[in-house]
Amino acid sequence: MTDAPDYGRAFALWRAAAPDWQAYTHHAFVEGLRRGDLPRANFLHYLRQDYVFLIHFSRAWALAAAKADTLAEMQAASAALHALVHHEMPLHVTLCAREGIDAAALEATQEAPANLAYTRYVLEAGYSGNFLDLVAAHAPCVLGYGEIGRRLAGSGGPYAEWIDTYAGDAYQALCHDVGALIDRALVHRLGPDWPALPRAGSLASRFATATRLEVGFWQMGLDGV
Amino acid sequence: MTDAPDYGRAFALWRAAAPDWQAYTHHAFVEGLRRGDLPRANFLHYLRQDYVFLIHFSRAWALAAAKADTLAEMQAASAALHALVHHEMPLHVTLCAREGIDAAALEATQEAPANLAYTRYVLEAGYSGNFLDLVAAHAPCVLGYGEIGRRLAGSGGPYAEWIDTYAGDAYQALCHDVGALIDRALVHRLGPDWPALPRAGSLASRFATATRLEVGFWQMGLDGV
Amino acid sequence: MTDAPDYGRAFALWRAAAPDWQAYTHHAFVEGLRRGDLPRANFLHYLRQDYVFLIHFSRAWALAAAKADTLAEMQAASAALHALVHHEMPLHVTLCAREGIDAAALEATQEAPANLAYTRYVLEAGYSGNFLDLVAAHAPCVLGYGEIGRRLAGSGGPYAEWIDTYAGDAYQALCHDVGALIDRALVHRLGPDWPALPRAGSLASRFATATRLEVGFWQMGLDGV
Amino acid sequence: MTDAPDYGRAFALWRAAAPDWQAYTHHAFVEGLRRGDLPRANFLHYLRQDYVFLIHFSRAWALAAAKADTLAEMQAASAALHALVHHEMPLHVTLCAREGIDAAALEATQEAPANLAYTRYVLEAGYSGNFLDLVAAHAPCVLGYGEIGRRLAGSGGPYAEWIDTYAGDAYQALCHDVGALIDRALVHRLGPDWPALPRAGSLASRFATATRLEVGFWQMGLDGV
Repeated sequence: MTDAPDYGRAFALWRAAAPDWQAYTHHAFVEGLRRGDLPRANFLHYLRQDYVFLIHFSRAWALAAAKADTLAEMQAASAALHALVHHEMPLHVTLCAREGIDAAALEATQEAPANLAYTRYVLEAGYSGNFLDLVAAHAPCVLGYGEIGRRLAGSGGPYAEWIDTYAGDAYQALCHDVGALIDRALVHRLGPDWPALPRAGSLASRFATATRLEVGFWQMGLDGV
Repeated sequence: MTDAPDYGRAFALWRAAAPDWQAYTHHAFVEGLRRGDLPRANFLHYLRQDYVFLIHFSRAWALAAAKADTLAEMQAASAALHALVHHEMPLHVTLCAREGIDAAALEATQEAPANLAYTRYVLEAGYSGNFLDLVAAHAPCVLGYGEIGRRLAGSGGPYAEWIDTYAGDAYQALCHDVGALIDRALVHRLGPDWPALPRAGSLASRFATATRLEVGFWQMGLDGV
Repeated sequence: MTDAPDYGRAFALWRAAAPDWQAYTHHAFVEGLRRGDLPRANFLHYLRQDYVFLIHFSRAWALAAAKADTLAEMQAASAALHALVHHEMPLHVTLCAREGIDAAALEATQEAPANLAYTRYVLEAGYSGNFLDLVAAHAPCVLGYGEIGRRLAGSGGPYAEWIDTYAGDAYQALCHDVGALIDRALVHRLGPDWPALPRAGSLASRFATATRLEVGFWQMGLDGV
Repeated sequence: MTDAPDYGRAFALWRAAAPDWQAYTHHAFVEGLRRGDLPRANFLHYLRQDYVFLIHFSRAWALAAAKADTLAEMQAASAALHALVHHEMPLHVTLCAREGIDAAALEATQEAPANLAYTRYVLEAGYSGNFLDLVAAHAPCVLGYGEIGRRLAGSGGPYAEWIDTYAGDAYQALCHDVGALIDRALVHRLGPDWPALPRAGSLASRFATATRLEVGFWQMGLDGV
């Protein structure tokens, strides 16, 4: 696990403690994107599920805004939510249309169990816990895609556009911002020595479980067509 | 209760069924704004409390986005949240600074019981209930200020700026949009004959209780200095 | 799908509309319990996961009590919660111990993705929706086990004790009570013609999705050892 | 503030940091109970509001069970919920009936703003925060009544029955149990040095705000008839 991107202190600690981080970031689906030999049908299956995923991912940012402690936290979560529902989701619809999946087909997508498992885990962590539980469960997605994009940068091939989205400066800057948001949120609530607290263990466990479910999400992309 | 603005069907029904609607929209605080004889100290007290209120009001829109059923509902709630935390709250800070209340003083405001009562009632309605409970508890504020602004339009005097904000086209358009959002949300879930369902009674009761707590909010502005 | 038990009106409607009901109630795992040829290792794997399941199942009843509208609903949910955490869970621990799985092993169980998917789906439905969403998502478990127990009654064999628990009068009475609770809750909120409302569709969908995740739960029992 | 009961470490710290603790525990309503000269009408007004309060108080315990981290926490919260909805609330109904307030009148009680403020503050703290926020906001009621009962023990007079309930061994034992539950929950999550963390400040603030709202609850009993 060399070459970890510098998305902050919490990310470094949680990543190192998540047994499935390698399985997630080097999943066969990801390698297929990198080499360009992932069958198109699997990619399209993934895109359809990703649309449903983005709805719940947006809801998680909305919940983070509702559970924020500071105006700065609210603004960060609100900005992420706004970008998702007003820009990324319409973009996703356009991208899917180009691939022959129209809006009606997207709306009709039956959410796969692996999708349900991951999104509901994140949302429930947020509802039952507080802002920290939510961002710890959310982070493997936001930051993992950043790490994957960074590793796959320049791979070219049929999935170059997807790769460039996550390898690009805009997404990498977002990852640094979210990492910093998480670090500040932890210190704001638990002080600078938070990694020594029992609470750190439960948050690392949130991150590790969400990572495990991300593996399942890739696998769903590979299995289901 | 003549001269009700046309903010949609649910508003018309809920407003007519809320015993304290007149007490809220014609409260002595409101009349003081209209006549211009509300003591400045009371207005400033209100402004400080309103800052704290806006934080929780924003959180309620965030929760609405998390609990939305459709992408259109998410977008509407997200747009409201975004406008609040990125524009209205900074504006409120500027306005307060002009009145001699700096940001530190705003942050240090102790939330009055009437403020706690209203904001927590709305948020808890949203958490314990669903999207409909949340918007029903939220509506007296959003739409009541619209009705008050419309009635006070052109009053002039020292509070003309406050009045113009809510009487203005932008805010009135927002009220129509929110009213339509609520009407669509009701039909989407409960069908066109929703007013005949028992559920309509519990939603009207949410609206009526929130209206009662709005009366308390004005009274707090009048009492506390 | 003949021979549906009479657990009330909502159950009958939701069951008939859930495409995976047969796949759930006649799953190979269930047939293995009936014929007695389910490998013990699979049963023990299931028991361990079921312990984790029961924790979240109890939390769902607790959330139902928090979201109840009437004292009767609170009392029903509270009684279910109480029975679970003070009687069934200790009993489960005892049963597992007899099978050679001690309390420490139970506590150390890593929650399987199929378990995460189902439990978090139910809890998130409850948090994001209201009491009705929660019970609709909860019902396939409570009532499905009743239907399975009833069908397998008298099968004998190594799993007779498990079968008798769910086939027995006490559990069947519980199913009738829960079915009646759901029916009353629906009429209380939506009136007697609730099946004609759009809301009925979203609740049936909650039930159907939860049923689909129950299939995954049995499959997990069959796959994982 | 001598003579604090020994309900644990968190209680001692939070109590000492709550500016309104004396105003709450020595409120004129309380002194009226002690001296026996509180007008009966005020006591009955309080009893009616207290019925509505108990519903939300029970819901808060239910939410605590849903948000618990350990089986022991779930069992404690479940036991409190069970005692409330199956014993204390029926008892309250009986007591009120003896005073000439029948069940229909209790059900028809309009919740006073001070009641709404306190109960929704507690529940919203629980929903937006986690188990710790919930118990910190809940504690002034549970433990404050214990301290008041202990101080008023043996006062005799027309309110001796009320006093004896909270002064009695059963209630005092409950206070010790709840105090210990809170202390264990804090150490379990934040470690033994939790009072040094920023989080301790936000929890003390939850306790202090809830205490302030308890003052409002007594005042409501005194004002409203």
